[in-house]
Amino acid sequence: MKNYLLLNENAIYYECGFSCDNVIFIKLEKDSFFITDARYTIEAQEYAQNCQVIESSDLVKDAQKILKKSKIKKIVFDPSDFTYSLYQKLTNNLKIEFIQRENFSKLKRIIKTEEEIEFLKKASMIGKKGFKELAKYIRKNGFKQEENFLHFKAIEKMSKVGNYDLSFDPIVAINENAAKPHALPTKKKLKLNDLLLVDAGVKYKRYCSDRTCTASVNFETFNFKREQQFKNKKEQKIYDLVYKAQLNAISKARVGMKASEIDKLTRDVIEKAGYGKYFVHSTGHGVGLDIHEFPNINSRSDVIIEDNMVFTIEPGIYLPNKFGVRIEDTVVMKNGKAEIL
Amino acid sequence: MKNYLLLNENAIYYECGFSCDNVIFIKLEKDSFFITDARYTIEAQEYAQNCQVIESSDLVKDAQKILKKSKIKKIVFDPSDFTYSLYQKLTNNLKIEFIQRENFSKLKRIIKTEEEIEFLKKASMIGKKGFKELAKYIRKNGFKQEENFLHFKAIEKMSKVGNYDLSFDPIVAINENAAKPHALPTKKKLKLNDLLLVDAGVKYKRYCSDRTCTASVNFETFNFKREQQFKNKKEQKIYDLVYKAQLNAISKARVGMKASEIDKLTRDVIEKAGYGKYFVHSTGHGVGLDIHEFPNINSRSDVIIEDNMVFTIEPGIYLPNKFGVRIEDTVVMKNGKAEIL
Repeated sequence: MKNYLLLNENAIYYECGFSCDNVIFIKLEKDSFFITDARYTIEAQEYAQNCQVIESSDLVKDAQKILKKSKIKKIVFDPSDFTYSLYQKLTNNLKIEFIQRENFSKLKRIIKTEEEIEFLKKASMIGKKGFKELAKYIRKNGFKQEENFLHFKAIEKMSKVGNYDLSFDPIVAINENAAKPHALPTKKKLKLNDLLLVDAGVKYKRYCSDRTCTASVNFETFNFKREQQFKNKKEQKIYDLVYKAQLNAISKARVGMKASEIDKLTRDVIEKAGYGKYFVHSTGHGVGLDIHEFPNINSRSDVIIEDNMVFTIEPGIYLPNKFGVRIEDTVVMKNGKAEIL
Repeated sequence: MKNYLLLNENAIYYECGFSCDNVIFIKLEKDSFFITDARYTIEAQEYAQNCQVIESSDLVKDAQKILKKSKIKKIVFDPSDFTYSLYQKLTNNLKIEFIQRENFSKLKRIIKTEEEIEFLKKASMIGKKGFKELAKYIRKNGFKQEENFLHFKAIEKMSKVGNYDLSFDPIVAINENAAKPHALPTKKKLKLNDLLLVDAGVKYKRYCSDRTCTASVNFETFNFKREQQFKNKKEQKIYDLVYKAQLNAISKARVGMKASEIDKLTRDVIEKAGYGKYFVHSTGHGVGLDIHEFPNINSRSDVIIEDNMVFTIEPGIYLPNKFGVRIEDTVVMKNGKAEIL
């Protein structure tokens, strides 16, 4: 692929080591162009490598100028990266064939380099420390605190008080709120023997961590470790089942399998126990610069798993109006097997 | 407009009072459909009004089913709301004409209702309290704190420790970092007589506040009030100039003017003083459910200003590698004039 266009922030970062939220990146055989507005040019000139930074008050117009001047005949773009509006403006009056390649940047990034894996490991390590700090806070001061406030505390602890960006807005959900896989925090207050689900991650050098813990609440020994004792027997049963499903996939995932086979490793355990219809999402997703990358670990994916792929394994069971359990780790495939990051 | 499609979260919220990050909303003459995945259906069923919630594992497929069944001939969509990829999938094999109306939802929302103005006022009030709390923190504990940490403190104070969502990720920039209109926080430490720029906002019932303060730092009387005394004379001169430009626009903005005339009210003051080329952005933007709505207040906008429009007035001067000053308030047009929210 000699010539291509990018708009996505992380895709552009992958190309040149800098990015921002208003840029058209053009890669031609010999030259690359980083077209952005005056708000970002100082930083772009400092950090964007191997490309010409162009300050523009009309990005599309300047992109068209460069494309016309280049005399290329074809250029690749990602149709999920362009709005329909921008596609029309950019292709208007140009005699260049625009070739669609959905997710071509993410596909390029599916196998991580050793350096990327180091960054992802470091992100996971920082993330785990964040969970530990949050657990410590909850042990000491969590009693009767609202989900809203605990959500903020999750941001504080995960970001190490502003030192790191988060991979995404954390999910902090108590009891029946945890039955909503993407719950928004409420005024619900934390109390003894509650079930608490926290899904959070942090970025190191722009690479994301992603982890979910479900835990039983007390204010003495509370932690986010994988072994959890719930007072409520149903909660314990569901927790143990989800954990079993996750361990089954982590221990049996192998290079050479289809992604759908890894999905089956979690799903079969949950289905066999009769809870299949409460496992409402896929088993996992790739993680890298984006929190959702390839491979997708779902029942439809034929992607063959290879070494140096990084993805989550996160089965969950959600019992509406009761509670939900999700257990998620990010793994890297190494020497044919899955290792938790 | 009888039939239309929406994807944008805030546009959909405006229609039915609920939204999430994976939904296709179809408005037909008699029926509305909120098509989303299993992660969101519990909340959607609880909060989305006047529409049928459809749980879907393939939103496009289910949207096509509904469209086919409806027997409509035309449907409006916003080409900046759809990726090119989604547009192709959704229109594939359908005998319905898709009519483009760029930003039709935002255009519909350009004049705010009294209720919306109340929400925007409340958001501004909460935002101002956030600035006050941040100033208090800086007076007592700001000395030698890093931008990164102050950025986190801005999130804490603006959100009232997690009680409110933010309108956007705050900007906290010291001295030469403030010369980058969208600076990212660094390890730079705050000291006496620094120039500190903070741009931050908070949401009340999903409606955004937006405000920027530039201030001279000390650790006794520090505040974000509009009157600021800088030790550095050049900083004082630029600050006074930006403030004068802002006041000129706020005091002279009238219903019936074009948006470009309001832009001219700030720009003329700055250009006359010889700093025109350092005012690198437009004067302002509408504010509502989205942080950037209509009207745009720039040199090209012919939109006629009306009562109940809400927008920012935020001139700035950015001297690369030295410092930058921006002063921003959000105003509502009432009785023909601009009132600061």
